[in-house]
Amino acid sequence: MIQNNAKLLMGPGPSNAHPRVLNAMSAPLVGHLDPDFLEIMADIKEMLQKAFQTQNQLTFAVSAPGSAGMETCLVNLLEPGDEALICVHGVFGNRMSDIVERCGARLKRVDAPWGEPIDPDQVKRALEECQPKLVAIVHAETSTGVLQPLEEISKLVKDSGALFVVDAVTSFCGVTLKVDEWGIDAVYSGSQKCLSAPPGLSPVSFSERAVEALNQRKTKVQSWFLDLSLVRNYWQGAQRTYHHTAPISSMFALKEALTLVMEEGLEPRFARHWESHELLKEGMESLGFEFLVREGFRLPMLNAIKLPEMIDDKSIRQRLLVEHRIEIGAGLGDFAGKVWRIGLMGENARPQAVDQFLSSLKQII
Amino acid sequence: MIQNNAKLLMGPGPSNAHPRVLNAMSAPLVGHLDPDFLEIMADIKEMLQKAFQTQNQLTFAVSAPGSAGMETCLVNLLEPGDEALICVHGVFGNRMSDIVERCGARLKRVDAPWGEPIDPDQVKRALEECQPKLVAIVHAETSTGVLQPLEEISKLVKDSGALFVVDAVTSFCGVTLKVDEWGIDAVYSGSQKCLSAPPGLSPVSFSERAVEALNQRKTKVQSWFLDLSLVRNYWQGAQRTYHHTAPISSMFALKEALTLVMEEGLEPRFARHWESHELLKEGMESLGFEFLVREGFRLPMLNAIKLPEMIDDKSIRQRLLVEHRIEIGAGLGDFAGKVWRIGLMGENARPQAVDQFLSSLKQII
Repeated sequence: MIQNNAKLLMGPGPSNAHPRVLNAMSAPLVGHLDPDFLEIMADIKEMLQKAFQTQNQLTFAVSAPGSAGMETCLVNLLEPGDEALICVHGVFGNRMSDIVERCGARLKRVDAPWGEPIDPDQVKRALEECQPKLVAIVHAETSTGVLQPLEEISKLVKDSGALFVVDAVTSFCGVTLKVDEWGIDAVYSGSQKCLSAPPGLSPVSFSERAVEALNQRKTKVQSWFLDLSLVRNYWQGAQRTYHHTAPISSMFALKEALTLVMEEGLEPRFARHWESHELLKEGMESLGFEFLVREGFRLPMLNAIKLPEMIDDKSIRQRLLVEHRIEIGAGLGDFAGKVWRIGLMGENARPQAVDQFLSSLKQII
Repeated sequence: MIQNNAKLLMGPGPSNAHPRVLNAMSAPLVGHLDPDFLEIMADIKEMLQKAFQTQNQLTFAVSAPGSAGMETCLVNLLEPGDEALICVHGVFGNRMSDIVERCGARLKRVDAPWGEPIDPDQVKRALEECQPKLVAIVHAETSTGVLQPLEEISKLVKDSGALFVVDAVTSFCGVTLKVDEWGIDAVYSGSQKCLSAPPGLSPVSFSERAVEALNQRKTKVQSWFLDLSLVRNYWQGAQRTYHHTAPISSMFALKEALTLVMEEGLEPRFARHWESHELLKEGMESLGFEFLVREGFRLPMLNAIKLPEMIDDKSIRQRLLVEHRIEIGAGLGDFAGKVWRIGLMGENARPQAVDQFLSSLKQII
């Protein structure tokens, strides 16, 4: 359900928020230590645990966008001199690598061509040559549209004794993500993708092993703002300690968005994302477009479409936005001008959105 | 103007937001690179420049709360081994010191007793014994209620060649703050104090000297998320480069809150804060309460009141909140149980708020 005057946001996020979510933000503010707000934090934590399919006690929302969630996971688990193995198959793996180096940690990489998933054998070979403290990988590469299978890699990582860190920014609440069953030790997401809340918050969750690693640190976390040993005293425990002032209104919106997810149920929500993807696929293929990613590894919520040479990327996206009020995403990095990224996230993973986009596209090309 | 069903937020922030600000957040989302949104960013930048009284080009809002703004200023201007002189007269000076050490910089401190301002002579003596890259100080210590005079200290800092960094979280839009005239090189604030927007954003501004120091860095900024050399490419220039997904709805609110400040005018807004403070002072003194801070150094928007022994801190604050729906702030650190912090910030710096608080307090004690 999208407001009448809204643009249809079918890029890499933000997606459109449900009116209930937007209205939640016009509630009067309350203090960040008000008992009523602490109750809202508890509700958010409980629903995040359900959505992540985890029992992890340290489950909450970082008070900043998904990239701050990424940084939270890495700066808390890494100390200078630690080794980290990062799987890179797009922009966000590269970003993790960059952060690892800023932590003073030793970076090892496993690379796959953009548009391909990481092969578990690559991880296996890499783990024979290094002993990283953590291995990190992107579940849903928003820059390429690849859905990365995680279970096999997780087993390899566990066997090596490393912590398993997953970027679920785009996958969370859109495709199956089983944090406990898949042995994920640290996971971060964003509020503005398949959760369809406004951007600005990053849901995260940490296993007991991850918390133990945090407790065993010899050095302070390099970021005060993201230091979990401080932040957790605000999010949990009987005595809530002031750390920073939480983004109250954004948390109201997050609570409402999570409530919508719970009302719908995770499985129906995932099915809705896949059905919308199938509809888009049929439509795009009938127009002669091809997917960048081979079948079996495609994300339903982020469809990377190859642009034929006669298609003028910029002018068509411009006309879609201005004349039809539909946003789709441009290619990032090597894919600039060569790929479109069509999002079907959260509220927008619906036949109406697909139809509206396809009919507009047909009018233009 | 406060909504009917709202609690009256007279603590250390958040303050109540104007209904126009809250309503702004229920507008449909747009993309973070949408031309309409880039225009909103430009409006925000222009109004922030006016509110900070600066021409600084690098003026924007960090996509996270005020403490992330603090960290932004320090991690971008400090490299490992650099020396930093931090003036400490409350919780937030301590927090800056903590961050300086996390940057691997050498910390020098000037301390004043909590409740007192920093004496310029202390800074002068300290600068005779060290050559810091920056000197940082809190303009409005939210933990003590002290208004720190800045002009004399600024001159000393300039003469030493150091950069001058100011925490204006609580002073911004509430008392006079002249970034250019006072020679401030880096300043950060929060959205939820005298600006009366929801918490979650941190307005910041950097002088050309600060930008030059950033450009001359030999090492990468330790935080990817807060790295100004990346963030600035999203906020300025012809070609806006994606860095992180901006908190769209919070930015709508920030724009509206700044618009309200511009409509009122800075000087009338400052006067309103002082007038409300005077009213509160009369009322509290007539009830026998005393201020923590001596006259001449009191903040109008954060009134630290000493608690007489017969006053039971917790139960009265509790009754104010539950029975009268008024939040006031507890003492922090050494002042826990000994001090109340009564906020008169932004929308709440009004006679009605003062009257409502005083009449409720009288009913309880």
